Amino acid sequence: MSGRRLITNLKGLFTPDPETPWGTHTVLDAALAIQDNRIAWVGPRNEVPRAWQGAEPIDGKGRWATPGFVDPHTHLLFGGDRSQEFNRRLHGVTYAELAAAGGGIRETMRATRLATVAELVAIGESRLAKLARKGVVHIEAKTGYGLELETESRLLEAYAELKRRGWSLDVTLMPAHDLPQEFAGDPDRYIQVVADEWQPELVGRFPGVARFCDVFVEKGVFTADHGRQVLESGRKLGLTPRLHADEFCHTGGAELAAEMGAASADHLMFCSETGMKAMAAAGVTPILLPATTLFLGMRDFAPARKMIEAGCRVALASDFNPGSCACLDPLLILRLGCLQLRMTFEEAFTAMTLHAARSLGREDLGHLHPGALGKVALWEVNHPLELVYWMGETYLPEIINLA
Amino acid sequence: MSGRRLITNLKGLFTPDPETPWGTHTVLDAALAIQDNRIAWVGPRNEVPRAWQGAEPIDGKGRWATPGFVDPHTHLLFGGDRSQEFNRRLHGVTYAELAAAGGGIRETMRATRLATVAELVAIGESRLAKLARKGVVHIEAKTGYGLELETESRLLEAYAELKRRGWSLDVTLMPAHDLPQEFAGDPDRYIQVVADEWQPELVGRFPGVARFCDVFVEKGVFTADHGRQVLESGRKLGLTPRLHADEFCHTGGAELAAEMGAASADHLMFCSETGMKAMAAAGVTPILLPATTLFLGMRDFAPARKMIEAGCRVALASDFNPGSCACLDPLLILRLGCLQLRMTFEEAFTAMTLHAARSLGREDLGHLHPGALGKVALWEVNHPLELVYWMGETYLPEIINLA
Repeated sequence: MSGRRLITNLKGLFTPDPETPWGTHTVLDAALAIQDNRIAWVGPRNEVPRAWQGAEPIDGKGRWATPGFVDPHTHLLFGGDRSQEFNRRLHGVTYAELAAAGGGIRETMRATRLATVAELVAIGESRLAKLARKGVVHIEAKTGYGLELETESRLLEAYAELKRRGWSLDVTLMPAHDLPQEFAGDPDRYIQVVADEWQPELVGRFPGVARFCDVFVEKGVFTADHGRQVLESGRKLGLTPRLHADEFCHTGGAELAAEMGAASADHLMFCSETGMKAMAAAGVTPILLPATTLFLGMRDFAPARKMIEAGCRVALASDFNPGSCACLDPLLILRLGCLQLRMTFEEAFTAMTLHAARSLGREDLGHLHPGALGKVALWEVNHPLELVYWMGETYLPEIINLA
Repeated sequence: MSGRRLITNLKGLFTPDPETPWGTHTVLDAALAIQDNRIAWVGPRNEVPRAWQGAEPIDGKGRWATPGFVDPHTHLLFGGDRSQEFNRRLHGVTYAELAAAGGGIRETMRATRLATVAELVAIGESRLAKLARKGVVHIEAKTGYGLELETESRLLEAYAELKRRGWSLDVTLMPAHDLPQEFAGDPDRYIQVVADEWQPELVGRFPGVARFCDVFVEKGVFTADHGRQVLESGRKLGLTPRLHADEFCHTGGAELAAEMGAASADHLMFCSETGMKAMAAAGVTPILLPATTLFLGMRDFAPARKMIEAGCRVALASDFNPGSCACLDPLLILRLGCLQLRMTFEEAFTAMTLHAARSLGREDLGHLHPGALGKVALWEVNHPLELVYWMGETYLPEIINLA
């Protein structure tokens, strides 16, 4: 294939502007030139530079071009199936009762511990393929359903293999996702083992595979001090901190993320205004997960508008996981961003592309300006707004340059 | 084609039990016999009666059989496109501001008044086909975007043509959907014209096409007395009342529906406990529309659990319309029923099949017991629970006997 391609016959092109926090560009009757898989030129079709007129043509077929989505918070790899447990919860069994009977995250942990690397890779490919069909071109993916060294290691090995097969993902180490029964009653000891032994060991076994580290700071799970310990250990190993913060109550997670220079603080249902200002000042990306709120039957979504007003570059993500959000649909996230977080279409789209990518340190994703990777989604719509407005519709874009 | 067909190789079969309010039946490794498009026998495959063993076989391919969905509240036919207006609202423009500039329902009314019957039929077929692909086998559909006699008549004519083409729908007359500008400031006069002139004229022009009548009782629109006037006129014409009730504040709509012996009272976000008891006693079906709550960015969903406890046979519907719920996806409704209305899977499924059908007086839809129409949905899942649990997944069932 020629290294020079030109997409024309586009009804329009819509992209966040990487030079501004919330600006976007719309070009009608657009064309887009790609050189060696990077965007080289974008503009109206009748202004295509002469040098591009001989490039290999791609027919846009009257569709709209946007950047593909980036999902900056997933728990992609886990074993087992908790759909039956899910209905027991609808029947009124509490999470505490399920957990006491060995259910909840423990059930996923057991199934994940039993899975081989090959099985995990197969599960991951099937899920990544579903995301890709719906327009997601890059994800963040966490370990954290092993809660023991060898399973965390197999998860990391599976992620390495998925990357080797060409899937575009950034990996986050998260052994401190919950307290395993082996350390029941002794979270201090577990955090010490994760920080001092497992993280160095895992980074040593798979150098360069994980780029981030994460920890679940929440009342009844791990404290802010535990979080600091894990993230500081990670930083020394070259991992950039991310943080599960302020999900079910205010624990100062946003403030901790700012203090640690974390790339992101995620969930933030109970974020304080001090925390918002601290994130804005420190350049921490708040990553909001509205499908989790919906899935858990909660009423109050994260305060996206207040965060935007505080100067934060908010991102949106799926939080795909078996217990609180079994969702692999970027359009549901986009729709909830608009309908319940009260973001405009332009803001929600920017949150799922540009700011999602930036939270992963990826300036080359999430927009369609020259220099970006040419991962373009082509949507069969009259205008991209329809992706939100037709709330129940399934749209499957064609993706240029998925791998 | 033989009139005798036998579906086998079903992983399972799940159906509401029409003999009880909320009971369901599950049969593993099931078979289902259809005679002349009606269900004749259901049970485990190894108990298929000898007489059925020569019937034309249909391979279930290991899928699950359920009744197809019934959607008992849609505004199927309207012209125009309000997706741009939708984003103006996300940008903070109020509905009152849009309405003052001629937007909102007025925009839809104008576009609908301009549409020919042939255009309306084409729009209707495209939307019915989308619903059918997602598992909906029967709907209720309202007029109400004409707000003048001749357009209401064209809407009714289009519905008659859709029925003639084999689509399965029940039609509701609803000229009192809003106050048209021709009657600005004089709702009393408009209601009188609808009740005394238009409804008799429309029923006379298209005898037997509409089975129901409906009216929007809401603060600032029409009063309970207006509602009574419209529904009483409808009843004299042989139409069964339905009612838009208690959507944005308590107006006594549920109580009115009970008093009028209505088939349903719909929306009910602000229904009183007295209203719930009155509906239960009178056999009025409360039809809840959770996707509208989501679309409008509201936080509080209708009190489904309280209604079930009060003895109501709750149904769920889409409320498909251009202003407050542009949703043609039954699975989103089912998911919201479980996740936000706190119904169990069995309850939500029953609400979208058996109780939805009953609110339309259709005992032959919404279940898979002998005597029902054989409109069977075949789902490629390990268990129907997955339809809710995998919240972002698109499932497109095969439908047996759609027409």
